[in-house]
Amino acid sequence: MTPTYNVSAEANKETEVKNVIFMIGDGMGPAYQTAYRYFKDDPDTQQMEDTFFDPYLTGMQTTYSADAYFDGGEEDEKENIPDSAATATAMSSGVKTYNGAIAVDLEKHDTKTVLEAAKQHGKATGLVATSQINHATPAAFGTHDESRNNYDQIADDYFDNLVDGEHAVDVLLGGGTDFFIRDDRDLTKEFKKDGYSYIDTRKKLLQDKNEQVLGLFAPVGLDKAIDRTEDQPSLAEMTMSALERLKKDEDGFFLMVEGSQIDWAGHDNDIVAAMSEMEDFEQAFAKAIDFAEQDGETLVVATADHSTGGLSVGRNGEYQWHPEVLQAAEKTPDYMAEQIAGGAEIETTLDEHIQFDLTDDEIEAVRAAFEEAKDQDEEDLILAVDAAIENIFDMRSGTGWTTEGHTGVDVPVYAFGPGAEHFSGHMDNTDNADNIFRLMGIEDKETGDQLADTASSHPTGILIGSILSILGAMLFIRKKTPEEHNS
Amino acid sequence: MTPTYNVSAEANKETEVKNVIFMIGDGMGPAYQTAYRYFKDDPDTQQMEDTFFDPYLTGMQTTYSADAYFDGGEEDEKENIPDSAATATAMSSGVKTYNGAIAVDLEKHDTKTVLEAAKQHGKATGLVATSQINHATPAAFGTHDESRNNYDQIADDYFDNLVDGEHAVDVLLGGGTDFFIRDDRDLTKEFKKDGYSYIDTRKKLLQDKNEQVLGLFAPVGLDKAIDRTEDQPSLAEMTMSALERLKKDEDGFFLMVEGSQIDWAGHDNDIVAAMSEMEDFEQAFAKAIDFAEQDGETLVVATADHSTGGLSVGRNGEYQWHPEVLQAAEKTPDYMAEQIAGGAEIETTLDEHIQFDLTDDEIEAVRAAFEEAKDQDEEDLILAVDAAIENIFDMRSGTGWTTEGHTGVDVPVYAFGPGAEHFSGHMDNTDNADNIFRLMGIEDKETGDQLADTASSHPTGILIGSILSILGAMLFIRKKTPEEHNS
Repeated sequence: MTPTYNVSAEANKETEVKNVIFMIGDGMGPAYQTAYRYFKDDPDTQQMEDTFFDPYLTGMQTTYSADAYFDGGEEDEKENIPDSAATATAMSSGVKTYNGAIAVDLEKHDTKTVLEAAKQHGKATGLVATSQINHATPAAFGTHDESRNNYDQIADDYFDNLVDGEHAVDVLLGGGTDFFIRDDRDLTKEFKKDGYSYIDTRKKLLQDKNEQVLGLFAPVGLDKAIDRTEDQPSLAEMTMSALERLKKDEDGFFLMVEGSQIDWAGHDNDIVAAMSEMEDFEQAFAKAIDFAEQDGETLVVATADHSTGGLSVGRNGEYQWHPEVLQAAEKTPDYMAEQIAGGAEIETTLDEHIQFDLTDDEIEAVRAAFEEAKDQDEEDLILAVDAAIENIFDMRSGTGWTTEGHTGVDVPVYAFGPGAEHFSGHMDNTDNADNIFRLMGIEDKETGDQLADTASSHPTGILIGSILSILGAMLFIRKKTPEEHNS
Repeated sequence: MTPTYNVSAEANKETEVKNVIFMIGDGMGPAYQTAYRYFKDDPDTQQMEDTFFDPYLTGMQTTYSADAYFDGGEEDEKENIPDSAATATAMSSGVKTYNGAIAVDLEKHDTKTVLEAAKQHGKATGLVATSQINHATPAAFGTHDESRNNYDQIADDYFDNLVDGEHAVDVLLGGGTDFFIRDDRDLTKEFKKDGYSYIDTRKKLLQDKNEQVLGLFAPVGLDKAIDRTEDQPSLAEMTMSALERLKKDEDGFFLMVEGSQIDWAGHDNDIVAAMSEMEDFEQAFAKAIDFAEQDGETLVVATADHSTGGLSVGRNGEYQWHPEVLQAAEKTPDYMAEQIAGGAEIETTLDEHIQFDLTDDEIEAVRAAFEEAKDQDEEDLILAVDAAIENIFDMRSGTGWTTEGHTGVDVPVYAFGPGAEHFSGHMDNTDNADNIFRLMGIEDKETGDQLADTASSHPTGILIGSILSILGAMLFIRKKTPEEHNS
């Protein structure tokens, strides 16, 4: 009796959704949302003000992958906490798969993604991320690969993966020149030859109006939002630029936008960076909502793929969390650590970028980390100094972490626009794809036997979903073998 | 545009809810729900099966208190992570207050609780908990005190707090003989004199049919569910017993049920005990849902007051969480530690209650903890051995913790029955009381100026809520001064 789920026998009569903006805050588990609300709170009022996300909360979703059921050979660990590749495949294709899988199932067969289905039905398509655009999450919407680590092949697949003779993705914005411009292949030239603009600065992004574009603003990932120079666009700017292009297609569009580095901040256990990336993602979400409010035919869904770091608001028995400490950081600890490793004086660097007075002990701890690691290679030196600076922020703010990996906790789901009611209550991550396939009026995913167990909450919906899936499987014609795109 | 919130100008026409069962999993943040789903999962299927809670998920709520805005004197710490007293007051009365406050506001004035309002309108009332029944959460529904630590005064207040000449609470089931039977006052005799049954075993609970009852099944809190003897009832049994009594009132009832010790397990960083108490709470929730399904006029809401311990499903970079390790525990680490501190042989005790083979290192670690603490007092010895046993389960299962206190993360909300749609999307904990006051057709809370900032999500609702609150404030007649019940 979830009061909000109203799929019924009339499901096939429901309004078709013209446009979908699907947004993923990578690693953005529930504690990130709460921390960010504390971070944005106006302490002059007794109420804690809503973030821009809050009014759109509709439910939560499970994130587990099928990795524990994957035969990956002798060395393979059966993981039951998911990675971003498996979760992105679940959300793009409605299929549970193994960790590392880029839109392939447990048998390494390509899954059909909502982006590909949208393209097949004449819609424009786009992917926007602050990671390299061939990173796991965007990759699992526009490419297929048996491993997320095959970065070059995935970049190639953005060019080679054709849907009815066209490139699958019209708008590609993110980082990744290291992978797209290589000795063996320059994909920027290939895309340009096929009519795409290729742009590599924020300024060019804002000037270019081409409906098909490859924009790569960094060798790998973009800088964290608070570290960015004016050469790199914000996630909101990339999102708006993508929407300006995609909306010209009268058949509608599918756009996936990822706040990629909330997760990276989590892996680094860096609460300063986490708040930076939450803000970047929130601003992009606000732009998407603005667009959908004006447009009226656009569904916006924002969620996370999993949580990262075991972040907690509070640590070590203290009942206080101090966002003002984090607001005082004008650059990330990574940024400061890179400066210091590059020869900048420690105390001067910290003082320049942190707007509170550091104690002698805090400065000494960073100095000790530097001294201990200064004979190691630069990367290790940066890591050591970075960890020492992060520790200052953790201790002062009261931030806890349990892991440098992911955790299994359910993540929040936000939705707005036509069809938003289908993203409510307890969901599985595969339900996102199932809903989008159905709401966009395009066929369901390849296999019907991998629907999540939500029968107890959505008995009618699951029945219809199964029927649609079986029909979809009967009608489906695989367009490509895995070998073709892994070459 | 949360699609599920439909309060509008017709709000006052909505169906009145006859009965409310309000359930609180103390400390049950989102990671507890996920961990419990992993714990109950059938590994023979690729899907992770829903818990009994999942189909009823409707939203999430914020839990912060107003402690940071409380003038508690020089020594007072401004806490912005809540305790159970402040959160229970928010949920019982719709008022943000300081940590430690039992149904009193920032000025230490009594707040009106939904339980008292229900009683005032002729409904039967009940409180069920696995803690002592005078612990913070139940206390903030049926009593008032400036401090949760005034256990004796709170116990007294269950007898002395009269609503229109009657005791505020008809059914009191939990632990707490240490506080109710004292040298200076025996509240069990006083309650019996006023027609209540007094019972102290599971057997007597199941036999007694009196509509008014005080049941105290332990000196302080009950044992953890997996440690309980047959003398102590389960939370489900207490819940059913309460419902059997309360349903006889033709005016309806208000019942609060607390899974108190999910939180205690969290404070102890004991994942075995946490799963034990989650199961106890889930079974009680299932009984409440059964009742509401049969009855048709009963609203069931289940939520948490806050999260505890910074629990994470996963730790230390591992992408595996092993519930089978926890299923192998037949008693809690506390239970085993008490046995060992009491003279039981270490290895024999561990082997008897843990159904996997411990390594020599694991046994040695418990032995070392014992040896190091054996000259300390018994409580410290138990704590030391307990921590060593807990560590075995944390390491084997991959469970992380960041604190022995609370964390600020938002918590899930589950709802079923008439009015359930008002508990959806992003909520504040005060919205629970506001909704219940309104849905039961009873006046709103005392003050209208402390509604949470949910205006952006629920613009019409907030307006109506404010109007109702102001009317409520105008009509409200305080029935008791703080001095009267602190005596």
